[in-house]
Amino acid sequence: MALQGTRLAYKEYMVEEYVLTKEPFYLPVADEVQLFEAAHAQKVPVLLKGPTGCGKTRFVEYMAWHLGHPVTVVKRRSSDGDSNRSLPLVTVACHEDLTASDLVGRYLLEGGETRWVDGPLTRAVKFGAICYLDEVVEARKDTTVLIHPLTDHRRILPVEKKGQLVEASDGFLLVISYNPGYQSALKDLKHSTRQRFISLEFHHPPRELEKEIIRHEAGVDEEIANNLAKLGEKVRNLREHGLQEGVSTRLLIYAGRLMQKGISARRSCQVAVVWALSDDYEVQRSIEEVISTIFP
Amino acid sequence: MALQGTRLAYKEYMVEEYVLTKEPFYLPVADEVQLFEAAHAQKVPVLLKGPTGCGKTRFVEYMAWHLGHPVTVVKRRSSDGDSNRSLPLVTVACHEDLTASDLVGRYLLEGGETRWVDGPLTRAVKFGAICYLDEVVEARKDTTVLIHPLTDHRRILPVEKKGQLVEASDGFLLVISYNPGYQSALKDLKHSTRQRFISLEFHHPPRELEKEIIRHEAGVDEEIANNLAKLGEKVRNLREHGLQEGVSTRLLIYAGRLMQKGISARRSCQVAVVWALSDDYEVQRSIEEVISTIFP
Amino acid sequence: MALQGTRLAYKEYMVEEYVLTKEPFYLPVADEVQLFEAAHAQKVPVLLKGPTGCGKTRFVEYMAWHLGHPVTVVKRRSSDGDSNRSLPLVTVACHEDLTASDLVGRYLLEGGETRWVDGPLTRAVKFGAICYLDEVVEARKDTTVLIHPLTDHRRILPVEKKGQLVEASDGFLLVISYNPGYQSALKDLKHSTRQRFISLEFHHPPRELEKEIIRHEAGVDEEIANNLAKLGEKVRNLREHGLQEGVSTRLLIYAGRLMQKGISARRSCQVAVVWALSDDYEVQRSIEEVISTIFP
Amino acid sequence: MALQGTRLAYKEYMVEEYVLTKEPFYLPVADEVQLFEAAHAQKVPVLLKGPTGCGKTRFVEYMAWHLGHPVTVVKRRSSDGDSNRSLPLVTVACHEDLTASDLVGRYLLEGGETRWVDGPLTRAVKFGAICYLDEVVEARKDTTVLIHPLTDHRRILPVEKKGQLVEASDGFLLVISYNPGYQSALKDLKHSTRQRFISLEFHHPPRELEKEIIRHEAGVDEEIANNLAKLGEKVRNLREHGLQEGVSTRLLIYAGRLMQKGISARRSCQVAVVWALSDDYEVQRSIEEVISTIFP
Amino acid sequence: MALQGTRLAYKEYMVEEYVLTKEPFYLPVADEVQLFEAAHAQKVPVLLKGPTGCGKTRFVEYMAWHLGHPVTVVKRRSSDGDSNRSLPLVTVACHEDLTASDLVGRYLLEGGETRWVDGPLTRAVKFGAICYLDEVVEARKDTTVLIHPLTDHRRILPVEKKGQLVEASDGFLLVISYNPGYQSALKDLKHSTRQRFISLEFHHPPRELEKEIIRHEAGVDEEIANNLAKLGEKVRNLREHGLQEGVSTRLLIYAGRLMQKGISARRSCQVAVVWALSDDYEVQRSIEEVISTIFP
Amino acid sequence: MALQGTRLAYKEYMVEEYVLTKEPFYLPVADEVQLFEAAHAQKVPVLLKGPTGCGKTRFVEYMAWHLGHPVTVVKRRSSDGDSNRSLPLVTVACHEDLTASDLVGRYLLEGGETRWVDGPLTRAVKFGAICYLDEVVEARKDTTVLIHPLTDHRRILPVEKKGQLVEASDGFLLVISYNPGYQSALKDLKHSTRQRFISLEFHHPPRELEKEIIRHEAGVDEEIANNLAKLGEKVRNLREHGLQEGVSTRLLIYAGRLMQKGISARRSCQVAVVWALSDDYEVQRSIEEVISTIFP
Repeated sequence: MALQGTRLAYKEYMVEEYVLTKEPFYLPVADEVQLFEAAHAQKVPVLLKGPTGCGKTRFVEYMAWHLGHPVTVVKRRSSDGDSNRSLPLVTVACHEDLTASDLVGRYLLEGGETRWVDGPLTRAVKFGAICYLDEVVEARKDTTVLIHPLTDHRRILPVEKKGQLVEASDGFLLVISYNPGYQSALKDLKHSTRQRFISLEFHHPPRELEKEIIRHEAGVDEEIANNLAKLGEKVRNLREHGLQEGVSTRLLIYAGRLMQKGISARRSCQVAVVWALSDDYEVQRSIEEVISTIFP
Repeated sequence: MALQGTRLAYKEYMVEEYVLTKEPFYLPVADEVQLFEAAHAQKVPVLLKGPTGCGKTRFVEYMAWHLGHPVTVVKRRSSDGDSNRSLPLVTVACHEDLTASDLVGRYLLEGGETRWVDGPLTRAVKFGAICYLDEVVEARKDTTVLIHPLTDHRRILPVEKKGQLVEASDGFLLVISYNPGYQSALKDLKHSTRQRFISLEFHHPPRELEKEIIRHEAGVDEEIANNLAKLGEKVRNLREHGLQEGVSTRLLIYAGRLMQKGISARRSCQVAVVWALSDDYEVQRSIEEVISTIFP
Repeated sequence: MALQGTRLAYKEYMVEEYVLTKEPFYLPVADEVQLFEAAHAQKVPVLLKGPTGCGKTRFVEYMAWHLGHPVTVVKRRSSDGDSNRSLPLVTVACHEDLTASDLVGRYLLEGGETRWVDGPLTRAVKFGAICYLDEVVEARKDTTVLIHPLTDHRRILPVEKKGQLVEASDGFLLVISYNPGYQSALKDLKHSTRQRFISLEFHHPPRELEKEIIRHEAGVDEEIANNLAKLGEKVRNLREHGLQEGVSTRLLIYAGRLMQKGISARRSCQVAVVWALSDDYEVQRSIEEVISTIFP
Repeated sequence: MALQGTRLAYKEYMVEEYVLTKEPFYLPVADEVQLFEAAHAQKVPVLLKGPTGCGKTRFVEYMAWHLGHPVTVVKRRSSDGDSNRSLPLVTVACHEDLTASDLVGRYLLEGGETRWVDGPLTRAVKFGAICYLDEVVEARKDTTVLIHPLTDHRRILPVEKKGQLVEASDGFLLVISYNPGYQSALKDLKHSTRQRFISLEFHHPPRELEKEIIRHEAGVDEEIANNLAKLGEKVRNLREHGLQEGVSTRLLIYAGRLMQKGISARRSCQVAVVWALSDDYEVQRSIEEVISTIFP
Repeated sequence: MALQGTRLAYKEYMVEEYVLTKEPFYLPVADEVQLFEAAHAQKVPVLLKGPTGCGKTRFVEYMAWHLGHPVTVVKRRSSDGDSNRSLPLVTVACHEDLTASDLVGRYLLEGGETRWVDGPLTRAVKFGAICYLDEVVEARKDTTVLIHPLTDHRRILPVEKKGQLVEASDGFLLVISYNPGYQSALKDLKHSTRQRFISLEFHHPPRELEKEIIRHEAGVDEEIANNLAKLGEKVRNLREHGLQEGVSTRLLIYAGRLMQKGISARRSCQVAVVWALSDDYEVQRSIEEVISTIFP
Repeated sequence: MALQGTRLAYKEYMVEEYVLTKEPFYLPVADEVQLFEAAHAQKVPVLLKGPTGCGKTRFVEYMAWHLGHPVTVVKRRSSDGDSNRSLPLVTVACHEDLTASDLVGRYLLEGGETRWVDGPLTRAVKFGAICYLDEVVEARKDTTVLIHPLTDHRRILPVEKKGQLVEASDGFLLVISYNPGYQSALKDLKHSTRQRFISLEFHHPPRELEKEIIRHEAGVDEEIANNLAKLGEKVRNLREHGLQEGVSTRLLIYAGRLMQKGISARRSCQVAVVWALSDDYEVQRSIEEVISTIFP
């Protein structure tokens, strides 16, 4: 209403049309690319384990791009002749109120009729997209009903509300992630679910690699990038000093970006690392000591 | 909408039309096929007990195929003269948000009117299909209202929202599964439910049988299959070393499939068995030692 | 939709038209038939207490048949001149999600209007049927609102959503059941509810009677029936050995039925009794010992 | 639908038209009738305290009848010239799922429009009826919003969904009941609610009175009635022997009614008193001893 | 429907039209009137603390009357030339099921369209009324979203369902109440809410004042009023004897009213004070002793 | 309805049109303005930590004003040529019933059709507004699904109910706040969320600054402002004496405002500080002692 006649800058996509248009920046640590390729070819579902911000989402995006190029059965928008397209990637950040209906779809009222709208998982199943369920243990348990028949020899999605079964298209692969650090009795992955995936373990990148990532993402010079990577390494070693989880690469990049805008190195690290990681005075002091040795 | 004009590879079925079109690969361990046949003929409901991935779902599929052939009252799609069809099989993976309405059906709004849509259980009852409720103790308790009158002499499904009762067709059989390993006070099968079923106990297959299964499903040669079956046997003996549940045949097949794509045996076993089974470093070490003796 | 043109074998009834068309097989243990008759004549509600599968449901069906014959005010289908009809019997298996609306009725949308649909209890109240609420303590507490005014001198059902009160027809009787073995603080019958019913206590039938029941229901000969009844008696004496609840007559009938299909006696008892009753190895061993003495 | 053309015996009333057409049988114990009259005249709300089945509901019905006669502002059905009518009485058995909407009213869809339907409390407020909320502590807490402004000087019912306030008609009186025996931290009446009512305490009637009630209600002779009243008195003295709550007059009447149908005195007392009161063998034995001394 | 043609005595008001038409009876204890006036003039929200029935609601009504007279921007009904009107007062008794929608408003279906209906808080905000949220800690936490922006410099009500913000009219003031005696960890007012209000502490009125109130409200003579006020004072001193909360002035007025109808003083005090305050025999005895010294 | 023809003083805005029209009064403490500017320029999300009422909301308003001036891509109302406009600011006070739908939007029925209405977060994302989620840990966990993809390199809002993704406009920045003092296991910010923001720590302003704020906001003279600031400082030092949280600047301003209306200093401080902060007699005494030394 009030928006009529306004030129707004945002863009909207249908979920399954959300394809990456340029190669994501990802530096492989080991043979994770080959393992993912093999799993995708063999239709073996994949579980990514690892701490917050260690690059799991970026890796899935990289694989979607990578797998999208040799493969040619990928859907294209009619108005777009560009073949530089990734495999479609449908990402869902799971949370404790996410239900099966949120993933599969629901009926909406329209013109006095109910119209069915496919959910993101159904769209991925039909399109043969990669469906990435981030932190799947957080989701409500009725999502299990969807994961199980999709991850055994049947590769079938039950759409209960329509009384239907949908067989997955060829390219479809289910990828889930999970942070073992949060593991608790209540939120653990049940074995009947877990044993349906191969697992790839992720850790924070080694210093050399992290330096490259920071340099690329924050736009800082090699020295600053190296110092920030060194900071990351040292802060992660502080975990026994009351720090619940190590610093993510993302926060180090934030520090770099603030420096790019003229904020001093130590102040940048304070707001992007110290205060961001902890509210505890003692822990904050420990991290600040580390910073002062790196950025004297 | 956005899907118009797109040739998508997925297939959709009505639940009760989901019949197996080729014989499932299943190797009987004992007389479980004869017991199931007798129970089906006598209309005695069946409970399958056993750990994750030991073949319960596959067994039910095999029985649906097996019972579908001699029997000729099975429904056929009009466009399909093929008599090589299984008994229809309706499978529901239960979970803690699954309600009676999900199984029986609900009213939908359409053209300003409410239209009733049968749920998967009602479809099975009307069609005389096998209805397999996987991990039934996970379902909400209102499903009990449906199971009880269907599993005594009445064989009746109450469709409360319509004020109706549906008498099951002849071929109908209710099969449920349950993993005693998960048994807890809260999630135990009530005796008033449990004593309505005969019970078949399943275990992981013996090594010779498992070797055959792996060979068939992963496409690996006899030696690799044998080694993977040996691995399965040994890992299951590690259960007292902190492993909550033994490795499923499915994970061993995954390992074999990755090898088929050129991944080394030890790396394949690491991602498909070690990391898939546990997040605990000590447990992982124990399994890796077993692997290194089998795949030196 | 997909069902068009398909000859399906199932039958549908409106709840209140569900009358028994042949006499249920029931062998009285004591004067329970006379007590129920007196209560029905005096409009005194009845509570049936007893363990799983001891025949409570069958008894209510027998009484519905029995009371339906001398009495002639019973409703008949117009197309049916047969006077061999029971009193209508409306049975509801209660569960923890069963609400007052499920019992009383609700509004549905139809052609843009809301249409009221009576629930099973309202149908029973209007028809003067017996309404049997099985395991009533499992139901949600709002069902109390319905039970109380129906079980005192008022015999009135409040239909809150319509702002109405319905006076019960003459034949109406409320019967509830309850298993004292499950009795817990949370699920106990409140005294304000309990003191509105006379109570009949049921136990497993004595051996001679149980033999007759097994013979009739499983179609086995006298010797096998006797052996199975003996087995029942002995297994119930094992309750102090960790068995939560004694074996029901139903399971003994299942064992007999499997034997009728050629399964050996000991194997039949194993799947119908041992595995059905317990997942505990020690308990299973105890029962198998009993079986081996009876079926050597 | 299926009910068309069937002559059914049930009767339906609008809630506010439910008036007693003959004087309820009630024998006053003390000056409770005078107190209730004074409270009604002074518009002081009334709380009735007492155990299950001690006559609270009957007392309210008696007062509705009693107050309805001198007062002449009571509503009459047009087709009914009879002035022998009670004050309308709206009774709601409260339970833990009862919400404010259940009491006040809600919108229903009809012919594409929403139509408001007053709930039982609103009907009582508008009609100037007595509204009796039985066991009010069981209701959901949002009922408080209705009770408070109705029970102070404002005598106003907020109808939130319509944005309205309704001032009570003159005859309106709110009466609630409550069983102190059930009193628990969670279900206690809050002082801010409790201090809005005068309280009348009820107990089981003394023996002479109870004898009269039993004689009248069960139709038994004086001797049996006296024996049953004696039984009631003695069983209530057994409370320290593990009996949670004394026997209600209602159960004693049930015993009398069964005797009227030819069931022996001891058997009648067993099903109407012993089994109805307790599932505990020891407690049952104690009560049966009392019975055998009274009905030798 | 059934109400057609019936002359009913009740009155209905729109919430914001509920203005007091005569001065409420209120006797100030200290400078609370001046403080409230200052807060209203300065747009400072007010929290009233104090026990049940100590006069908080009456004080707000008094202030609405008092502030309504000098101020002339108050809305008037067109058919009403009377300028003797209070500031509109919107009172909501909070409870644990009260949601933000109950306060702000909701969409209703009407003639196939949704129509928005403002809730009581929105009506107060638009009208510039006093909005009194009684026992606000009882409300659901989503009411916080409304209280916060209304109680800082913004004075804005977010109407989320319409995507709107409403700026409060000039006269609007938010007043909340809270009983510190009930204070518990779960139900405490969060500091981020609490520090948005000035607080006025209320206690039971001193004896002289309470005597005047009782005399006025119950219509009793000075001596009885004095005795009842003395009773109130003494009963409140019994709090350490197991009495959870002191007697409210309201209950003392009830006792007086019953006396006006001829009930004896001691019996009136028994039902209006003793039984109303406690179910505990010992506590009841203590209060009755106090009564017998005052009304010998 | 009843509002027709009434001239009401309130104003309504669409959420995204809520722009500040004059510069908010904010006195920077350190370089927080520069840090926020850098973060906004670099699209780095911001977390504000600090106690109740220390100025976090005011700071965000100041930054919206400040950033709105140099930047010229801000939306304007067509009827308004004024360029003195802030960046649009969408503020949501989070609470434990706030769901993802409340933030993203929902379908409404209108004229028989469902119409989608964007929620406040979607409006902010499309407009490129600052979206401030106040006390975000209080919100339901499904809000996480929205925060995560909006706070990494994707800057995407998933609109699940429409199957869409919305890419944020350029100016969009997500700001959240959080009070570490309330930090509990249940309500803590998960690291996977927390590590997506730089953090700015806020404290109560130093005395000199607070004096200026009080003087400006309450309109009091320098001496009173200074005394109130001194009071704030001293009361915050009482935290170890049982005071859960220090006094907010807001309450000190309230005290000043009451003085402006002629209420004495000590009485003003009593209702605005002592009673507002605590219900505990001892704590109240301690604060009053402080007051009596400052306002003798």
